[in-house]
Amino acid sequence: MLNFDKEKYLQVTGGAVNLRGRIEAVIDEVSDKGYENVFLIGIGGTIAAMYPFEYMLKSNSTIPVYAEIAAEFSVMGHKHFSENSLVILYSLSGTTPETVAAAEYCKEKGATTIGLVGELGTPLADAVDYPIANYAENDFGGDSSAIQLYLLIFRLMYKRDSFPHYEKFADELVTIPDQLISVKEQGEAQAEAFAEKYKDEKYHIFTGAGNLWGKTYSYAMCVLEEMQWIRTKSIHAAEFFHGTLEIVDEETSIVVVKGEDETRPLLERVENFGETYTNKLTIFDTADFELSGISQEFRKYLSPLIMNTFLQRVSVHLEDKRGHSLEKRRYYRKVEY
Amino acid sequence: MLNFDKEKYLQVTGGAVNLRGRIEAVIDEVSDKGYENVFLIGIGGTIAAMYPFEYMLKSNSTIPVYAEIAAEFSVMGHKHFSENSLVILYSLSGTTPETVAAAEYCKEKGATTIGLVGELGTPLADAVDYPIANYAENDFGGDSSAIQLYLLIFRLMYKRDSFPHYEKFADELVTIPDQLISVKEQGEAQAEAFAEKYKDEKYHIFTGAGNLWGKTYSYAMCVLEEMQWIRTKSIHAAEFFHGTLEIVDEETSIVVVKGEDETRPLLERVENFGETYTNKLTIFDTADFELSGISQEFRKYLSPLIMNTFLQRVSVHLEDKRGHSLEKRRYYRKVEY
Repeated sequence: MLNFDKEKYLQVTGGAVNLRGRIEAVIDEVSDKGYENVFLIGIGGTIAAMYPFEYMLKSNSTIPVYAEIAAEFSVMGHKHFSENSLVILYSLSGTTPETVAAAEYCKEKGATTIGLVGELGTPLADAVDYPIANYAENDFGGDSSAIQLYLLIFRLMYKRDSFPHYEKFADELVTIPDQLISVKEQGEAQAEAFAEKYKDEKYHIFTGAGNLWGKTYSYAMCVLEEMQWIRTKSIHAAEFFHGTLEIVDEETSIVVVKGEDETRPLLERVENFGETYTNKLTIFDTADFELSGISQEFRKYLSPLIMNTFLQRVSVHLEDKRGHSLEKRRYYRKVEY
Repeated sequence: MLNFDKEKYLQVTGGAVNLRGRIEAVIDEVSDKGYENVFLIGIGGTIAAMYPFEYMLKSNSTIPVYAEIAAEFSVMGHKHFSENSLVILYSLSGTTPETVAAAEYCKEKGATTIGLVGELGTPLADAVDYPIANYAENDFGGDSSAIQLYLLIFRLMYKRDSFPHYEKFADELVTIPDQLISVKEQGEAQAEAFAEKYKDEKYHIFTGAGNLWGKTYSYAMCVLEEMQWIRTKSIHAAEFFHGTLEIVDEETSIVVVKGEDETRPLLERVENFGETYTNKLTIFDTADFELSGISQEFRKYLSPLIMNTFLQRVSVHLEDKRGHSLEKRRYYRKVEY
């Protein structure tokens, strides 16, 4: 596969699955200590990485959960937040100022904090009670953090009697790195064809729902906008029909980001609309991928990870076909603002 | 003012403030009965109308609150939802299928439901325990529902000891219709100038935060996209810096939707960025408007209503300058999908 370093990928994702013991020990400790609610905090791609888990907590567990954008969380005076809150923060670099500030705010208030980072010794790692570190770069950081968040959140649910199948789920999850490579291979032709067909497209509507809404939002923003400088609208599939549909004509690109949870019919509705009203409809569907080691009952939870690993291939091909490096920035970490 | 029917406006907003007694009686009854949490449900413009109140509940009260998109809520199996939930739903027509379906789902589960509608006898009104009706059309429906939601939500907080100033707040709120007309008059020149300057603009970035995020999102989607067929990106001000900023060049329109709550510095940051990197920066700021009968301490809560009434003037001028009726649709309620 183009620009794919298999060894590096297995090192990153292998590092993530190898954190199982550490993560379970942390979650068991904080669960035994007790907490009132869970806050999931990040900004940009990292808050978007939390949204699937907010959704899955809401739809599987009575643990109260709030996913909040770091910079807003630090000023809003959230009345559910207290020293009895359990906070999970994520910054791959460990240096994102808004997320580090949120962690420091949490520390002042006496909440229990867990931080996902790429490296120990970074400001976020130093600001939290329980740093969890696995080295990754932008390309594979999403898969790495997703694996860790599955272990964290599903273990939390297990400890609250909300997800009795945790052991089986985790046993299967730790086998996933090789299967994710297979997903990339299965999706390679579609990823390349999409990049070729749409390399000159100036605007896309990305739509998703349920546990794929976060990925839909962040792929549009963090890859197409940030890394490729292409305009996008990301819109929840149910919301699409209450405004955004009116800008669609037969030349409007609509990308349906389709997973396997209970919101799938919402995506099918957009798909049906798109089939009639545009010539530029793309369906990215996790159901198209075989996963040899994952039980059918768990597939729906894993859609965000499957979609993420596939979309990373789309990014690589967009970079290639468009001659626009994924690392190129005008502003971010280049100028002050 | 262009296309402004003052008498009709005062009838609609007067109708909303006159519901104070009815709303307080309903809220006192459901509060005395008790509830575990509050669900705010709508779709498109109506879920966006709930977001300010979700934010204000979180930042002022320990009442657990979940704002959910109607169509997703009905399928997701939300584990916090039960017969002990208090649900507030909103559909101006009373016929929005997704919201009516959500109300019926709530009824089946035995939750307590309040429905905001334009008319009694509509499906949503018939599906809820407590219908609250005030006739309005699209133009003034946003102001009408906001007034009702302030009374509903702030009374709820008052009954939970989260907002002791309710009586003073409500006494001031019921005087607001005339002040909102004054806001429209104060903003008229800016509204017309914006419409003139940007009548041919093909794409806008709208950014907001805190209790104005919902309005930012819905103005972009429900007015610019749905009613004017102009492409938009709506992006939370804190999120802007984690992706969307990279598509900005000096010809990119950025509209900063600025209110008076604690997230104001997040908007100022986008404003500073925009001043440097684009020639097309617009600031819509509720702080620019005088409100003769509202205490300073309450202004921040009312930003969504103030902004809504101002933006309605922007819509009228866009319609006029662009020669594109706000009622024109390609698909919505015109074709099946």
